[in-house]
Amino acid sequence: MTNLLKRHTDEMGITTLTLSQPERRNSLSLGMLDALGEALEDIAADSATRVVVIAAEGKVFCAGHDLKEIRDQLDSHEFQLALFKRCSEVMQQVVNLPKPVIARVAGVATAAGCQLVASCDLAVAETSARFATPGVNIGLFCSTPMVALSRDVSRKHAMEMLLTGEMIDAARAEQLGLVNRVVDESLLDETVYAMARTIAEKSGHTLKIGKGAFYKQLEMPLADAYDYTARVMAENLLADDAREGICAFLDKRKPEWQDR
Amino acid sequence: MTNLLKRHTDEMGITTLTLSQPERRNSLSLGMLDALGEALEDIAADSATRVVVIAAEGKVFCAGHDLKEIRDQLDSHEFQLALFKRCSEVMQQVVNLPKPVIARVAGVATAAGCQLVASCDLAVAETSARFATPGVNIGLFCSTPMVALSRDVSRKHAMEMLLTGEMIDAARAEQLGLVNRVVDESLLDETVYAMARTIAEKSGHTLKIGKGAFYKQLEMPLADAYDYTARVMAENLLADDAREGICAFLDKRKPEWQDR
Amino acid sequence: MTNLLKRHTDEMGITTLTLSQPERRNSLSLGMLDALGEALEDIAADSATRVVVIAAEGKVFCAGHDLKEIRDQLDSHEFQLALFKRCSEVMQQVVNLPKPVIARVAGVATAAGCQLVASCDLAVAETSARFATPGVNIGLFCSTPMVALSRDVSRKHAMEMLLTGEMIDAARAEQLGLVNRVVDESLLDETVYAMARTIAEKSGHTLKIGKGAFYKQLEMPLADAYDYTARVMAENLLADDAREGICAFLDKRKPEWQDR
Repeated sequence: MTNLLKRHTDEMGITTLTLSQPERRNSLSLGMLDALGEALEDIAADSATRVVVIAAEGKVFCAGHDLKEIRDQLDSHEFQLALFKRCSEVMQQVVNLPKPVIARVAGVATAAGCQLVASCDLAVAETSARFATPGVNIGLFCSTPMVALSRDVSRKHAMEMLLTGEMIDAARAEQLGLVNRVVDESLLDETVYAMARTIAEKSGHTLKIGKGAFYKQLEMPLADAYDYTARVMAENLLADDAREGICAFLDKRKPEWQDR
Repeated sequence: MTNLLKRHTDEMGITTLTLSQPERRNSLSLGMLDALGEALEDIAADSATRVVVIAAEGKVFCAGHDLKEIRDQLDSHEFQLALFKRCSEVMQQVVNLPKPVIARVAGVATAAGCQLVASCDLAVAETSARFATPGVNIGLFCSTPMVALSRDVSRKHAMEMLLTGEMIDAARAEQLGLVNRVVDESLLDETVYAMARTIAEKSGHTLKIGKGAFYKQLEMPLADAYDYTARVMAENLLADDAREGICAFLDKRKPEWQDR
Repeated sequence: MTNLLKRHTDEMGITTLTLSQPERRNSLSLGMLDALGEALEDIAADSATRVVVIAAEGKVFCAGHDLKEIRDQLDSHEFQLALFKRCSEVMQQVVNLPKPVIARVAGVATAAGCQLVASCDLAVAETSARFATPGVNIGLFCSTPMVALSRDVSRKHAMEMLLTGEMIDAARAEQLGLVNRVVDESLLDETVYAMARTIAEKSGHTLKIGKGAFYKQLEMPLADAYDYTARVMAENLLADDAREGICAFLDKRKPEWQDR
C-alpha cells in the first residue's frame, strides 16, 4: 500500500503527498483513496506538518476512479456506494484538514482527479496541464466531482465541462478560478513551494482557525456568518500567537510563533 | 398561439425553440410564456428530444416582459402576480428540464430576456449581442431576472447591471460568466449546434441524472451534497448505459447507448 | 468624533462619506466604526440621500482595525468581542442600507478596510490601489473580512489572499470581482460620480426595493427566491413610480419620479 502514495516532510514543515502509480494514471482506486485518507488523518494530528502539497508522478496528475476496479465490481451496488462514499470522505478530509493544502498539477486531471484539485485550498498548474469531468462520455456523470467543481467555478462554466466532457487547458482553468496560477513547467516547483513556504511561516494555530472558519461561514447566511466569525476573531485574540503577532507588528519586529 | 414559438427537432434529437415575434421584440407576454411553458412541458416527456436550443428571430433576442400588456392591466394586482409567477415557473422549467438547454443569443437580451439566457444551462452569443437588466430605468426593478443573473455572475457585477440598468456587450458577458462563448455572427449556428451535437451524443439517461443532481447539490451544504451525489453516482451505475459506457471505454470501442 | 468622518451631500442626493484620519491610516477604531454606523443609520432615514460614496483621505483607503487600540485592550475579551461585533454590524449596515453604496478606492485597503470595499454594492478603484487580508501575518486571521470577501470572489482566490496575506493590485482585484472598474487616478472621481449620478437618477423607491430583495433572494434556494421576487415585482408595480415609469417609457418621454 505504502508505495501508492509517497510522503515527504521538509524542514519547513511542508509535507508533499505524491500519487505514485503513474502506470495506472494515479487513479483513485479504493487502495489509493485509503492511502490518501490515512495520510490526511495522520497529518491532521501531526505537528511536524504545517502545509500540504498534493503532487503526482508521471504525465497524468490523476485520472479519477479506477474503471477496471469498478467494472470488476459492476454487480455490487454495495461496493460502488462504499467507493463513492469513501472518495467523498477523502475529498472532505482535504477541505476539513486544519492545514492548508495546495495542489501541484502537472499533466491531466480528470473526473475525481479534477475534483481533487478543486477540493484543495489552492492550486498551481503548469502550462500544459488540462482538466475535464468526462464521466458523461462513459455514461457515468461526474456527480461527485461536480460538488467540488461547482463550488470553485461559476455554474455555466461547470455545466459546460460536465455536459460536454471536454478538456479545458490550464489558462482556461485559471480564468475560471479552478486554479490560482499557471506557470511554465520549469517553474512549477519553485512557484508551489514558494507559496507553501509563505504560508508555512505563519502561525499554525492561526491557519487552523482561519481555514476552518472559512468553509464554515461560507455555508451560512450573512448575519449568521458575521455572528460566528466575530466570535472566532475574539477567540483568535486569546491565543498567544495573536498577541505576539500584534505586539511584534507594532514593535516592528518579526513575530516568534509558539505554534510554528 | 403556435406562431409565437417555432419548434423544430432534427435527426440528432436537437430541438430548437425559436421565439418568433420579432415585431414585438420577442417579448415574454403571457401568451409567449404559455407557449414556452407548454413546449418545455411537452419536451420533458418527449424521447425524440435530447438537447434544446432556445433561439429567436430578428434583431432582438428577447426584450423581457410585454410592457403594453402590463400597462393594460395596471390596476390588476392579481394579473401582475400571475404574470410574474408564470414567468418564474417557465424559467424554473428550463432549469428543471431533464435535458440540457443552450441559449443561442443574437442581438439584445434584456430584463426577463436576459433572465432566460441566465437560466439556460449554457449560452453562446454572437459578437454584437448585448445584455441588460434595465427595469430600474422604468421604476420596476428586475427582481425576478436577478434571481437567475445573480446565480450566474458575481454579486458586484450583477449589482452594477441591476442598479445602473446599462447594457453590457457580449465580450463582457463572457468575462462575467453570463455566456460560455462569444463568436462571430457567421459562426453562431455552427458553434451552438456543434455544442448541441456533442451533448446529444451522450446517454440521455446520464444527462438527465447529471443535470438534475447539479442544481440540487448546489443548494446543499458540502457534506449533504456529497452524501447525496455519492448515492446518485452509485444509482447511475445501476443503469445499462453506465455499464455499457465503462465496458466500451475499457474495450476501446464506441458505446451503444440504450437511451440515445 | 465628527472630524473622523466627513459627510457631504450634493444637489443630486449623492452623499460622500470620507474616512478622514489619514494619519492613522483611516483605521476602523471603535470611534471610526461608531461614526460610520451613526452616519449610515442617519442616511438610511434621510430622504436627501439617494446614493452613498465611501471615500478616504490620504494614501491609505483603510488599514482595517486599529491594532494599537486592540493591544491596549489585549486582556479584555469583552472589548474585543464588542469591537468585532460592532464592525460586523457596520458592514451589514452597508449591505442593508436601502440606498446603493459605492466604494471609491484610492490607495491601500487591507483587512477590515478590504472588507469595507467588499461590503459595498459597487466599487471603483484607481490603478495603484491594492488590497489584502493580511491578518494571518500577525496571527489574527481575517475571519470577519473573509465573510464579505468570500461572497465577492471565488473561493480559491479568497483563500490565496487569506492564507498568504499578500497584496493584490487593482487589475487583479477587478479580474477577481472585488471591484467593478479600475481607472487612472485622474479619472477616479469622474468615474465614481458618473456611476453615482446614473443611479441617483432612478426612482429611490425602486432602488430600495431592488437592493433589499437582491441580498435577500441570494440566500434562498431557487424556488423560494422566485416565489419571493415574483411577489416583490408585483408589489413594486403598485408603486406610483413603476406606473409612471412604464407609461413614460411607452409614451417615449422621461419619467417624473415621485421618489426622486
